[in-house]
Amino acid sequence: MRILLTIAELRSARAELLGSDAAATLGLVPTMGALHEGHLALVRAAKERCRFVAVSIFVNPLQFGPSEDFSRYPRTFDQDCTLLLKEGVDLVFAPAAEEMVPAHATTFIEVGGIGDRLDGRSRPGHFRGVTTIVGKLFHVVAPHIAFFGQKDAAQVAVLRAMVRDLNFDLELVVCPTVRESDGLALSSRNRYLSAEERTHALALYRALQSVASMSAQERDAQVLQKHLRSCLESAEGVRVDYAEVVRPRTLEAITDTHGGALVAVAAWVGKTRLIDNILLLPGNTP
Amino acid sequence: MRILLTIAELRSARAELLGSDAAATLGLVPTMGALHEGHLALVRAAKERCRFVAVSIFVNPLQFGPSEDFSRYPRTFDQDCTLLLKEGVDLVFAPAAEEMVPAHATTFIEVGGIGDRLDGRSRPGHFRGVTTIVGKLFHVVAPHIAFFGQKDAAQVAVLRAMVRDLNFDLELVVCPTVRESDGLALSSRNRYLSAEERTHALALYRALQSVASMSAQERDAQVLQKHLRSCLESAEGVRVDYAEVVRPRTLEAITDTHGGALVAVAAWVGKTRLIDNILLLPGNTP
Repeated sequence: MRILLTIAELRSARAELLGSDAAATLGLVPTMGALHEGHLALVRAAKERCRFVAVSIFVNPLQFGPSEDFSRYPRTFDQDCTLLLKEGVDLVFAPAAEEMVPAHATTFIEVGGIGDRLDGRSRPGHFRGVTTIVGKLFHVVAPHIAFFGQKDAAQVAVLRAMVRDLNFDLELVVCPTVRESDGLALSSRNRYLSAEERTHALALYRALQSVASMSAQERDAQVLQKHLRSCLESAEGVRVDYAEVVRPRTLEAITDTHGGALVAVAAWVGKTRLIDNILLLPGNTP
Repeated sequence: MRILLTIAELRSARAELLGSDAAATLGLVPTMGALHEGHLALVRAAKERCRFVAVSIFVNPLQFGPSEDFSRYPRTFDQDCTLLLKEGVDLVFAPAAEEMVPAHATTFIEVGGIGDRLDGRSRPGHFRGVTTIVGKLFHVVAPHIAFFGQKDAAQVAVLRAMVRDLNFDLELVVCPTVRESDGLALSSRNRYLSAEERTHALALYRALQSVASMSAQERDAQVLQKHLRSCLESAEGVRVDYAEVVRPRTLEAITDTHGGALVAVAAWVGKTRLIDNILLLPGNTP
């Protein structure tokens, strides 16, 4: 496993790795480090689909708002590398902030509409930061397939739109959310939670599960959304940021769940903002 | 020479053309058609530097304002193809508007700062349209080198910033402005000019030449800029849009021309907006 700190190093390592074999495929798993089993599931999916796998570790300053947790976001680089080595990753790209976000850079990639919904509405500028840096990673690493987690459902919708609209020549693969045995979705931010907060955090998945059960009988999206919100509002130690039932690809409001739906929540548990979601499949007739 | 109308066709033609030869290089000359000797100079530069050459012909709706000349912009596709065939071009990519700008697309690439100066200030949204479509062309055609004309000096500055900031893996080559024997810069929009307007249009190059002469003695950018403007304002049949002496890479105002300068004008001649510019080289000491 090679660890590359600069764009130039990464490019030359990529060229050496793939050589002149036009059939060799490279998978990319973009991460912000603080790796957990959710990330490792992406790495394993990449190993299955691609001959070579690159993982980027970059805590992207552009996707954090001024009052958010950029400075205290967990950084566990040595542990991350140990985990990736065990998984048989080929390249780790871990650029410094100034390598990816030089002072003179003024260019952004922005997805209108989708990028202003869910987390994009709660965190202005967040998705512009995500798309700009992911676009740069795509240009630098030039993967054939890039792997993202369904846990970040809004991010997935925004990146799918970016790849389609700008004709990036790669495939996006989205892997299911990985959960603890009690249902808590894995997240690097779970480390922020006290024992009590961790118990409170289970309300997110419970609310989603309750909507899933209800959706077998009820297809009115507004009714489901109200139920979702009331589940969360009645839970202890949880403050709702958003609770929505929307179209998965566009994140737009829907009237019914006939064509499938994304049930997505963001909530504060103490000072930690957590997100989770489930997909209702199309044709979930009552 | 193959003419490809869709992204999928272009991609497969590119793959066939380059085959498995990792050393084969592809040059791209992006155009809006209505080709003239300026475009052909770019094609010849591409032929010299690259094994294969692609030319795109796409009148980009995103780079025209609502009151601009999108609908009447000259379209001379058959003539263009005849010219490109003679030059030995390999691929012509001529997508329909809906192929490049589908109704659902909401993603834009935008260069802040530089993109709001000169033409970006006069034509709000213009460079966002340029960068978004050129970014798409780069993803679709995947050239090793892309060729642009210095005539579009602000566009060149904006695209250089985009390529650098987003780490597009290609080289930009900028070729000198091609002029008629009397100095008029070649432009597809020259076709709009009446015989009388064409005479008036010579004022642009005369003003630039006058600044060039003056710059041998005078390095104060403000003095040169005032002279440029007064040359144009005293010319018959010309209405100034902008007349500036700026830093070539950033298009920012400068105090003196010691480090080199871009002398750029845009002016209306009748209903036709023309642009032209010259570069003052660094160290042009008095």
